[in-house]
Amino acid sequence: MKLKVYADRMSQPSRAVIIFCKVNEIDFEEVRIDLSKRQQFSPEFKEINPMGKVPAIVDGRFKLFESHAILIYLACVFPGVADHWYPADLFKRVKIQSVLDWHHTNLRQGAAKYVLHTTLAPAFGLPLNPQAAAEAEKVLSSSLSKMESFWLKGSGRFLLGGNQPSIADLSLVCEIMQLEVLDENDRSRILAPYKKVQQWIEDTRQATRPHFDEVHKILFKAKARLQKQRSMAKSSETQSSLKTTLPSKL
Amino acid sequence: MKLKVYADRMSQPSRAVIIFCKVNEIDFEEVRIDLSKRQQFSPEFKEINPMGKVPAIVDGRFKLFESHAILIYLACVFPGVADHWYPADLFKRVKIQSVLDWHHTNLRQGAAKYVLHTTLAPAFGLPLNPQAAAEAEKVLSSSLSKMESFWLKGSGRFLLGGNQPSIADLSLVCEIMQLEVLDENDRSRILAPYKKVQQWIEDTRQATRPHFDEVHKILFKAKARLQKQRSMAKSSETQSSLKTTLPSKL
Repeated sequence: MKLKVYADRMSQPSRAVIIFCKVNEIDFEEVRIDLSKRQQFSPEFKEINPMGKVPAIVDGRFKLFESHAILIYLACVFPGVADHWYPADLFKRVKIQSVLDWHHTNLRQGAAKYVLHTTLAPAFGLPLNPQAAAEAEKVLSSSLSKMESFWLKGSGRFLLGGNQPSIADLSLVCEIMQLEVLDENDRSRILAPYKKVQQWIEDTRQATRPHFDEVHKILFKAKARLQKQRSMAKSSETQSSLKTTLPSKL
Repeated sequence: MKLKVYADRMSQPSRAVIIFCKVNEIDFEEVRIDLSKRQQFSPEFKEINPMGKVPAIVDGRFKLFESHAILIYLACVFPGVADHWYPADLFKRVKIQSVLDWHHTNLRQGAAKYVLHTTLAPAFGLPLNPQAAAEAEKVLSSSLSKMESFWLKGSGRFLLGGNQPSIADLSLVCEIMQLEVLDENDRSRILAPYKKVQQWIEDTRQATRPHFDEVHKILFKAKARLQKQRSMAKSSETQSSLKTTLPSKL
């Protein structure tokens, strides 16, 4: 029976798992769990992941959730996966584990919350929250700074000084890619100080093409849609401010 | 050269690593990094963990931080560690990984933040924050509920239905044990609905005795000190309210 990957490409860990499967030519079926329709809370999906989150996999009788655990499982169970993704060498392996653990309580907390509180909240019926966004930005910038100065300090192009990407590169790059949905000025301002991080995003993209671009397409569509909404909101603001201003000038 | 464990027993992941070493008779040197003196930010410790967090280890030339990564490393590199802590079987291993990943973004977020915002903030020069505490309590209760209904649903006494503890049991139990420093009414209220969780704490304690109790001593001392402070604050409140009330009655 084919591996089933339950995912929504709008979710960053879902994208990491899908790209991993495609790059490594793992034969799988992608089952869309539409987060905007709250399908992750359906009784059927709760049978697969009672936590109501994507991604999750079913491989034969085996069920698993949490994207890092899934990436480790896939790297170990499919013999065609190259060693650099999750090296057999214990010392390399636990260093990757260290990056993945750090990711949970640093980069993920900053990036996901910043995007939620500045941009995506209305889609979930929540108000934008500038104070929570400011706090998340601190965590995000501190995380990017640590990536620049520590995780990318080696001579190689990838995290931990590697010459080829590991599951940590894929997981972290998908986290950062969600910043694409931000207002472009915001995104540039946040990423601008981190030249190595920018180069590493491009290197990881190149190393996983064409799947990286294909799986991120949904994000670029959302980016365009949100940008259009922002322009319309701005132009209607200008018009209404013109309306308010003009009569007094007439 | 002996394994060095840089830790502060007031930190829950530090305790998990120290208990693991002791239970498994790993020969190690415990190096205290006193968080209350901000020693984690000293230049010497930053050489070991540039993130400025405990625990961290140095094993010969090899440095590592992030407690889950450390536990995995120790379980793999020391031949005397029993298989149940981190089974060689891939399917069991990635399920443990799934619990550990879940821990980062659920139980840890709830427990650590609740304790910080209700109890420990003043020790770090911060004000208590009832709103943040209320949000953290939601995450904490939801996490305990998931432990009760899912992670502890098997027939065994430990997480994932195991008959013996894994590194996930140790990591999560140390997280929950920090609730000891709370006001006892608060702690009872939070844990009361979760009978399986309570039994599992006791079972994990029994399985790792006497080290569990010894390593948690510092927490019980802190609990007693905080309880005394609370009683004193309460009695001085009563006295000052008596003072305010009495004159008007005289």
